[in-house]
Amino acid sequence: QEDAQFEVGKAKAKVCMTCHGEDGISTLDPYPNLRGQKMGYLVSSLKDYKARERTSGLAILMQQQADALTDQDIEDISYYFSQLGQDTQP
Amino acid sequence: QEDAQFEVGKAKAKVCMTCHGEDGISTLDPYPNLRGQKMGYLVSSLKDYKARERTSGLAILMQQQADALTDQDIEDISYYFSQLGQDTQP
Repeated sequence: QEDAQFEVGKAKAKVCMTCHGEDGISTLDPYPNLRGQKMGYLVSSLKDYKARERTSGLAILMQQQADALTDQDIEDISYYFSQLGQDTQP
Repeated sequence: QEDAQFEVGKAKAKVCMTCHGEDGISTLDPYPNLRGQKMGYLVSSLKDYKARERTSGLAILMQQQADALTDQDIEDISYYFSQLGQDTQP
């Protein structure tokens, strides 16, 4: 049931919300908004941090975050943010 | 006059719109939406591509795009997309 993934993703995204905001609008200029972002892009971005394909300044902070996530976590968290602000959002 | 930068950025962003959409909502799942994204994040992302700090799959395509941009282009294009969907948008 799709809503379940939204709730699971929301729970897993707690730590992300510190910088990216609970509604996916980030708290500071250098941090991207994630609200309604494309799920495929969110998944590939997180995997890039894990694979050290993103290495500039703040990337190091995100590498640590991504390292703690399983592939399923990445899917659920990406799904959550991608659904924010969409009409289909439960 | 701030609107000038919006218009200049819009003109410079023509090529970006092919994948990222004229309104900043991307045409395909792997490409990020840029609509209303934080300007600081857009600027740092483009500079990361130029500096080869982003190197995974699609990054190579973006490296070529970023290589063609001056710092001013990066500021103007980032400003344009960051303003889309904001109430202050001219």
